[in-house]
Amino acid sequence: MSASTSLRVRLPVLVLVLEVVMLALYAAFVTYDDNANAKLQNNETQPMENSLYRDYPYFADVQVMIFIGFGCLLAFFRFYGFSGMVFNFLTATFAIQWAILIQGFFQFNHDGKIHLAVINLLNAEFACAVVLISFGAVLGKTSPVQLLVMALLEIPFFAVTEWAVLKYIRINDAGGSILIHLFACYFGLGVTFMLYRPSLNDGHAKEITSYHSDILSVMGTLFLWVFWPSFNSALTFKGDDQHRAILHTFIGLSSSTITAFALSAVFNKRGKLTMADIQNVTLAGGVTVGASVDMMISPAAAYALGIMGCTACFLGYKYLTPFLARRMRIQDQCGIHNLHGLTGLISSTAGICAILLATEETYGPSMYQIFSHRAPPEGDPKLLELQQLIPGLKPGLGRTAQEQALYQLAAIFSTIAASFIGGLLTGMVMKLPVMALPSDEDCFDDELFFDMPSDFDIVEMLKTPSSLDDKGQSMSMNSKV
Amino acid sequence: MSASTSLRVRLPVLVLVLEVVMLALYAAFVTYDDNANAKLQNNETQPMENSLYRDYPYFADVQVMIFIGFGCLLAFFRFYGFSGMVFNFLTATFAIQWAILIQGFFQFNHDGKIHLAVINLLNAEFACAVVLISFGAVLGKTSPVQLLVMALLEIPFFAVTEWAVLKYIRINDAGGSILIHLFACYFGLGVTFMLYRPSLNDGHAKEITSYHSDILSVMGTLFLWVFWPSFNSALTFKGDDQHRAILHTFIGLSSSTITAFALSAVFNKRGKLTMADIQNVTLAGGVTVGASVDMMISPAAAYALGIMGCTACFLGYKYLTPFLARRMRIQDQCGIHNLHGLTGLISSTAGICAILLATEETYGPSMYQIFSHRAPPEGDPKLLELQQLIPGLKPGLGRTAQEQALYQLAAIFSTIAASFIGGLLTGMVMKLPVMALPSDEDCFDDELFFDMPSDFDIVEMLKTPSSLDDKGQSMSMNSKV
Amino acid sequence: MSASTSLRVRLPVLVLVLEVVMLALYAAFVTYDDNANAKLQNNETQPMENSLYRDYPYFADVQVMIFIGFGCLLAFFRFYGFSGMVFNFLTATFAIQWAILIQGFFQFNHDGKIHLAVINLLNAEFACAVVLISFGAVLGKTSPVQLLVMALLEIPFFAVTEWAVLKYIRINDAGGSILIHLFACYFGLGVTFMLYRPSLNDGHAKEITSYHSDILSVMGTLFLWVFWPSFNSALTFKGDDQHRAILHTFIGLSSSTITAFALSAVFNKRGKLTMADIQNVTLAGGVTVGASVDMMISPAAAYALGIMGCTACFLGYKYLTPFLARRMRIQDQCGIHNLHGLTGLISSTAGICAILLATEETYGPSMYQIFSHRAPPEGDPKLLELQQLIPGLKPGLGRTAQEQALYQLAAIFSTIAASFIGGLLTGMVMKLPVMALPSDEDCFDDELFFDMPSDFDIVEMLKTPSSLDDKGQSMSMNSKV
Repeated sequence: MSASTSLRVRLPVLVLVLEVVMLALYAAFVTYDDNANAKLQNNETQPMENSLYRDYPYFADVQVMIFIGFGCLLAFFRFYGFSGMVFNFLTATFAIQWAILIQGFFQFNHDGKIHLAVINLLNAEFACAVVLISFGAVLGKTSPVQLLVMALLEIPFFAVTEWAVLKYIRINDAGGSILIHLFACYFGLGVTFMLYRPSLNDGHAKEITSYHSDILSVMGTLFLWVFWPSFNSALTFKGDDQHRAILHTFIGLSSSTITAFALSAVFNKRGKLTMADIQNVTLAGGVTVGASVDMMISPAAAYALGIMGCTACFLGYKYLTPFLARRMRIQDQCGIHNLHGLTGLISSTAGICAILLATEETYGPSMYQIFSHRAPPEGDPKLLELQQLIPGLKPGLGRTAQEQALYQLAAIFSTIAASFIGGLLTGMVMKLPVMALPSDEDCFDDELFFDMPSDFDIVEMLKTPSSLDDKGQSMSMNSKV
Repeated sequence: MSASTSLRVRLPVLVLVLEVVMLALYAAFVTYDDNANAKLQNNETQPMENSLYRDYPYFADVQVMIFIGFGCLLAFFRFYGFSGMVFNFLTATFAIQWAILIQGFFQFNHDGKIHLAVINLLNAEFACAVVLISFGAVLGKTSPVQLLVMALLEIPFFAVTEWAVLKYIRINDAGGSILIHLFACYFGLGVTFMLYRPSLNDGHAKEITSYHSDILSVMGTLFLWVFWPSFNSALTFKGDDQHRAILHTFIGLSSSTITAFALSAVFNKRGKLTMADIQNVTLAGGVTVGASVDMMISPAAAYALGIMGCTACFLGYKYLTPFLARRMRIQDQCGIHNLHGLTGLISSTAGICAILLATEETYGPSMYQIFSHRAPPEGDPKLLELQQLIPGLKPGLGRTAQEQALYQLAAIFSTIAASFIGGLLTGMVMKLPVMALPSDEDCFDDELFFDMPSDFDIVEMLKTPSSLDDKGQSMSMNSKV
Repeated sequence: MSASTSLRVRLPVLVLVLEVVMLALYAAFVTYDDNANAKLQNNETQPMENSLYRDYPYFADVQVMIFIGFGCLLAFFRFYGFSGMVFNFLTATFAIQWAILIQGFFQFNHDGKIHLAVINLLNAEFACAVVLISFGAVLGKTSPVQLLVMALLEIPFFAVTEWAVLKYIRINDAGGSILIHLFACYFGLGVTFMLYRPSLNDGHAKEITSYHSDILSVMGTLFLWVFWPSFNSALTFKGDDQHRAILHTFIGLSSSTITAFALSAVFNKRGKLTMADIQNVTLAGGVTVGASVDMMISPAAAYALGIMGCTACFLGYKYLTPFLARRMRIQDQCGIHNLHGLTGLISSTAGICAILLATEETYGPSMYQIFSHRAPPEGDPKLLELQQLIPGLKPGLGRTAQEQALYQLAAIFSTIAASFIGGLLTGMVMKLPVMALPSDEDCFDDELFFDMPSDFDIVEMLKTPSSLDDKGQSMSMNSKV
């Protein structure tokens, strides 16, 4: 058994190959963006106007979310804290460096080179978030080799979809509800569908939390909660658009948080709070405001979206996740379909409504900046008029609100389709025997992939309910070891 | 028992009512500030000059303090980690959204609307900090329902006091020593006076820490420590004022930290360090520099203030807190009177001295900007003169240093009086039977309000000293369960 | 025994003396920088152009690294979590306030005063980082008194070296590979050489981690990892230089992280991952890119440096550290020679190569800004020419690339020599009996210097492997207590 999951050869070989490829590609294609290029500095250059100072603060906030927020949140299993936190570290690191290349090829290249700036890193982090969300669906059942392979395949699937949707369908999705959350969710479901483990439908002895792992996981939630406004606003226009994005995200999270506490208590037989709800459902509001986060939807609407998203997410955990596992062979370990799928759908719908309701009256001429595809096309006299009012307004496609709404719909469906198919294919690859797939009984256990500190077996002995009945024995046994 | 503390009906009903009210009020009164309003964007607007970029970094830092800093710090009890961290999350979230409305009505409304920007969120966070400080006085003895009610009532009491003091008394209090720390402290003491539990004066078996809870709590302290300069400087004038605020806060915290270590060792019979001192007393310097944080007090003075505040705080924990509990029926669980009351009083006094010593010689004309109430009134020729030197200097009240000092005194006493009375009234409401008040024996125990992971009883069994004597038994008992 | 390590007199006396001295020096010499001085504000002053807004964000990030990152990372021992985290807190706080003075005397004084701004705090934090790195070499074997004395002596040694190297040798070392990492490493090795404990070469029963301490320590790693780009770029030129520094640091950390996972698995007999590798080796890339972090080395070179540094660091832990301990009487507890010494040497070498390869073709005229000592001297016509292209270019020393490379070499050797000698002398002082040096058996144990929560002995009993054999007994024994 242990032989087939030893990382001794698999992981180093895979990493070595990836590094050689990556190094070659970086050497061949990656150069500096003008903002990072010493040569272009001259007496016109104002150092403090470097794009770095616009982008880095948001990059740093998202870094905290990715590495510390996700890392702690995914460490909620009692015997899987090392794996949750450390596999997240490995997967995220690889995903970002890989996304810099792949997104670079599709979006950030001119004269045959990828021009690197902090904004590329920021975009790569969003691609990385996609991978980590999908990871949530298979947490506890996958080897680091499988996770690297998942990142290796998901990033290109994502980059192509993102590129196609932005270049051809042209949508408004500042908070990434469609491209990030829906894509990540259905990709993850596709993967977990392929990795279906019937025997785990009845639960696993180690599929439990501990007092400390629950606290650690809540800390992760709090880091995500605190920096989510930066996440939702990092890619909006600067100025009032970003300002609204931050306000809406904060309000949406606030209302969804207090709703989560209420629902947690009312659905609990003994009227107590459940940590799992607080760790996950509180965050639903952040996703739900995503698609319309930079629009003039009014603070009250953001508040309402938070409540709706939270309710849908909570009920999803309660009823939908078990159903998916039993009837659809979709085991969604962290319930990403509730926190990212359902909320993403509500968010996208809200975005469409916001688009249909948008008028020059509310937005003024800058409507054509936010809904850039509604701006008059090149040469249209109206464009010149608007450019008087908003300098630098780019020509658009002259779409009507209704047209834009239909394009949003198209984007939703094509994203879901593309991601689910991508997930199925990726899941197939991840099932190959060489991937060190853990056996059912070895799931949710750090011991499989880590050298454990000597207290681990004691922690285990003491904490596994099963071992309680014959504690005296198991102890004496243990002491013989 | 458990019936009377079940949250199943109480919490959801309260939250539901609050959300409906809040949603109605947001819809009716909350609109966007000009900096967040798309309509006002035109060819004069420089996106990067949006107020967002001045305020958001400080907002984000204070977010970390509120949700992660306070959350971890309040999780120091061995069996109360869930409650400390999670009730802080719930209370803070509600307090901020509620404060946006209440402060909006008093301070941020014109043409009958509250104009929302990040600066409102920042002010609401300070109101939230007030609630969380008061929370410290009753930690471990209150239900989430009581805490929501406390926030519900404390925010208006605070907003009115803040508004009255700023509008009519007009004081200098950049770091909020008077309006935040003194108010929060005496409000909390008022509440805990009403919730007096005689039986807990002899201590409670679960009123203890554990190895892990102590470490978690120190992490909270470190987050507060690191971001405190942002807290104290968030609401000062931009430029040199904010620069001084950050320098003074850092210096004050530094000197109070090393002092705390020294005092902890010297007052310990065996010459060892006590974690409780390191978790709380180290922070005293941050409060003590508050009232004069933006003034030209000199770095050495900040250093001295840190030492003084720390010493007062430490001695307070040692002698005053037990006295208050036994003689005055004031059980101050986290010793907020030491960390916020005594230090707040020293800080306010220091502020008064700084005001009396302020001269144009030290400050130059910008003295009338920092001590805005000392600026000459409208129409005074001296005002025009000064406006030549400092453009945009606002007309003041032409107060002398002595007058301003008396107004500061007035503010101190009226704030203390208002907050204590407010606390008493709030405490009365919190005692109502419907509030799910925990019984004495159920205090300091997560089990009352949470579904606990299966290792909790073992943790408890292993960790409660009392249960050690008959470990064997309690184990076999346990295994029968 | 306990008598001789009681902090009751030693620590307070030392702190009191230090505080009196510090207070006197601050009062006598420390005043405000122009950016923090109210008097210099006039109608030309643009508040938002205050240096505060350039420096504070990086200061805050480094604060998180110092207090939370290092604090958690150093808490990896099972029974030494309090000490690791809290001694780091004490040492860092003192080191910064002390460095403000010492660096001020050497670098930041004019007209006989130290002019305080956030930039001074930032520089002091780097001096503090030096002390904390050296602390890693003696972790678990030192009393807080010794650590304060170490900071007290190391800061001046560092400040003099830094001042001499920058003023006379004049080098490029934006990321501090030479002045921070090499200095800290060899100073620490000098100290630990003097504090050699032969009996600990065979290991110590408490020199182990626990499940929770390993997770805590990884969190520390993640905080350091996330904010390292700010650390490496805090002192570069603003604009494109800082932009490159952030890109290179991120890329270097990324490649070294995935390499660390691969090496950890391949060198483990059972093909499992070792937490110690993930906690330390992943960070090697951040140091390795340091010396050339702001140069035009290309992203691919940063990627390669990360891999090289990580490999050297890993092999150092595997083979060099044990060798140093057995053969050289150098017990390097945290392996700082691997994470800071070897990587620092690679980084310095890379820096020299980058200097030799730098051409105007790649850098344009701004080459003379980055390699400021290569700029033409005052009066040289070429200087005026360049100043047309880059306004504000300072005259340099007209060095050639080769000359500069030799000066870098000189700096490396003199820094290593100075730091090691400084470390030896400091170690001698730290050995004085008055320093409360822990006995060998008391090492790695919080109990020596802290009042422990009542669960500590149980944790210990349960977790020390030795106590397992006779668990039943030790329990009954324990229950008698």
